Amino acid sequence: MSRLVMKFGGTSVANLDRIKRAAKRVAREVANGHEVIVIVSAMSGKTNELVGWVDETSPLYDAREYDAVVSSGENVTAGLMALTLQEMDIPARSWQGWQVPLKTNGAHGSARIEEIPTDNLDAKFAEGMQVAVVAGFQGISPEGRITTLGRGGSDTTAVAFAAAFDAVRCDIYTDVDGVYTTDPRITSKARKLDRIAFEEMLELASLGAKVLQTRSVELAMRYGVKLRVLSSFEEYSETAGTLVCAEDEIMESHVVNGVAYSRDEAKMTLVNVDDRPGVAAAIFVPLAQAGVNVDMIVQNISEGGKTDMTFSCPVDQVARAEKAIKDATDRGELSYGDLVVDSDVCKISVVGIGMRSHTGVAAKMFEALMGDNINIKVITTSEIKVSVLVDRKYLELAVQTLHDAFELEKAGDA
Amino acid sequence: MSRLVMKFGGTSVANLDRIKRAAKRVAREVANGHEVIVIVSAMSGKTNELVGWVDETSPLYDAREYDAVVSSGENVTAGLMALTLQEMDIPARSWQGWQVPLKTNGAHGSARIEEIPTDNLDAKFAEGMQVAVVAGFQGISPEGRITTLGRGGSDTTAVAFAAAFDAVRCDIYTDVDGVYTTDPRITSKARKLDRIAFEEMLELASLGAKVLQTRSVELAMRYGVKLRVLSSFEEYSETAGTLVCAEDEIMESHVVNGVAYSRDEAKMTLVNVDDRPGVAAAIFVPLAQAGVNVDMIVQNISEGGKTDMTFSCPVDQVARAEKAIKDATDRGELSYGDLVVDSDVCKISVVGIGMRSHTGVAAKMFEALMGDNINIKVITTSEIKVSVLVDRKYLELAVQTLHDAFELEKAGDA
Repeated sequence: MSRLVMKFGGTSVANLDRIKRAAKRVAREVANGHEVIVIVSAMSGKTNELVGWVDETSPLYDAREYDAVVSSGENVTAGLMALTLQEMDIPARSWQGWQVPLKTNGAHGSARIEEIPTDNLDAKFAEGMQVAVVAGFQGISPEGRITTLGRGGSDTTAVAFAAAFDAVRCDIYTDVDGVYTTDPRITSKARKLDRIAFEEMLELASLGAKVLQTRSVELAMRYGVKLRVLSSFEEYSETAGTLVCAEDEIMESHVVNGVAYSRDEAKMTLVNVDDRPGVAAAIFVPLAQAGVNVDMIVQNISEGGKTDMTFSCPVDQVARAEKAIKDATDRGELSYGDLVVDSDVCKISVVGIGMRSHTGVAAKMFEALMGDNINIKVITTSEIKVSVLVDRKYLELAVQTLHDAFELEKAGDA
Repeated sequence: MSRLVMKFGGTSVANLDRIKRAAKRVAREVANGHEVIVIVSAMSGKTNELVGWVDETSPLYDAREYDAVVSSGENVTAGLMALTLQEMDIPARSWQGWQVPLKTNGAHGSARIEEIPTDNLDAKFAEGMQVAVVAGFQGISPEGRITTLGRGGSDTTAVAFAAAFDAVRCDIYTDVDGVYTTDPRITSKARKLDRIAFEEMLELASLGAKVLQTRSVELAMRYGVKLRVLSSFEEYSETAGTLVCAEDEIMESHVVNGVAYSRDEAKMTLVNVDDRPGVAAAIFVPLAQAGVNVDMIVQNISEGGKTDMTFSCPVDQVARAEKAIKDATDRGELSYGDLVVDSDVCKISVVGIGMRSHTGVAAKMFEALMGDNINIKVITTSEIKVSVLVDRKYLELAVQTLHDAFELEKAGDA
């Protein structure tokens, strides 16, 4: 019998009424002949409450106890969902992570899934269970303690179950109705994509489109899990939402499929750094040790044995970055002429797997921005994206201009 | 090293501040040289919230899912308590029921403890753990599912751990400072008892003094666990609270140690029942099947082959009892002249192990009640208690009168 994984996020199970609505969607898939594995998050707000208590109790908490506390919200939803399905005469039962067991490594707070043995659930499906409701976000360590997979980890739980149980699809029910060409709050021309390639989704997810946890997309790509993002709050249809899938399942695609942005970026430039082997390490090793999330890195051409090194990081990490650089300088590991900080920038990226076979995307992007007199401060490119830093005040304008320039309002993937 | 069990109820861990106060009490016992097993309840109100959700979702719920949901509150408190202790530099970790494991039978919702293997905790104590914080109220069934022990089950968890780990004492921290000779809201002369025998505590617990779960007292009696009830909200002293212990640890005792009451009782009399073998069964088997909690049963003398049968039950079960009797009559299993219901009675009991060796307690009780013109409607006696039904309006007066008559305000034990 075909297996289907359905995952419901916190807003989709926020109260008993919503759990009932979610259960009806599960019932429809059971009627369609699927054995269903439902992955649930905690009711919205619950995990934040628990995290708040842990932080207040112990700022530098023991991550094993953090996991024991914050995993409890999912257990509540799993039991309530199983009861709701039983009330609809659907044979269902709840499973906590350790009962499956979902085995992880011992990295508490952000554990990696190592194995999901299928025997326990398979045995119950064989006995007539039609729905297994699994508490998301949690697993069990080699030492038998509860682990959690990091915020958003229920997405990863869902994809891992879809891979382990060879599911026909993994449906992620959330509070948005799919993945858009860009943020609809910035331009009403933003269009929902019917399909998007894993690689594009990964770039969009890590660039700030907070629909799916990045790790879940990586996992889906590695195991070829068909992942669909759709809304809990809209009428269901076969083509609802966005299917995240392999490139070859997308017949025809735009060269560019999305415009992503990240608002609160800072640009830091070390002027007149010695241009010698090891200087990049001398800068970025201390930054990494200080926990600074360095994103873009650009090294300008060298003149007279000196060069300028520019990088970007989240604006709230500027102070930490400055301290790390000052400390490295004090230790004699680094010397430079000046440190220039620009805390008023944002990052705009265009993403599309079509770029691999099409040239001129970057040129078209720069031309469009120039047409609005938006000055580009830093550029980086990868195989399927081009990113620029611009002044933060231009964020909305830049996104709208690029969305228009690449004609993303027009359906091209079909 | 000596082991101590400390149990904190819901009001004692109601918020982070209270958890901290409780942790300080644990720290003192660690400093005293104990290895401590702490049993925690859910934060007050949490379990009721979870039970409410289950009831609303599924009125005739699957008890296995009920247990999975309602056990989650204790897991939160256990983790937070472990973190609080760690912040005080005390090596502590949390244990959920299945991790210990606390093994129960499969009677979900009111499971019985079958075994608590000590190896896991012993190994951690040997490695330097000083406090094991255990989530109360929960265990694991032979099928590997979560069970709960019934409301108030954390008391039973605590006593079971004290027995399994051969603890020197089991301290139950709650929101009252001990066991009283009677309800202090009814007479200000009520006196806290320094010690009380297990048998007396059992009678008081089941008679409505809601300090300890009855099963926990039974278990403590069977395994000789010294049980102390004391307040989380008062200054600690060596003699704080009430010690529930074996009879022979109480040097000198009053003949009567407590006056208990139960307010909402009903008296039902079947007039002119056939006085033949099997008639009691014909009445009480249908009542039991209907879930009526019959308490006192009195059969009057027989006249002309007929007798009157009187019993008491909680007033809110009267309708159910009437229906059960009517149904049995309709089936021809029972015949009687009349059914007289009195829904305005209460039960007053005097309790004391000294009664075993002293006569005249019942006479003194009846005399005192007569002195206030309180009419006694039904009497039953056991080895260590005498109970009467009287009109409900006399409840406070009867308790006060009996408290005075037996001079319970005077310290007599110790």
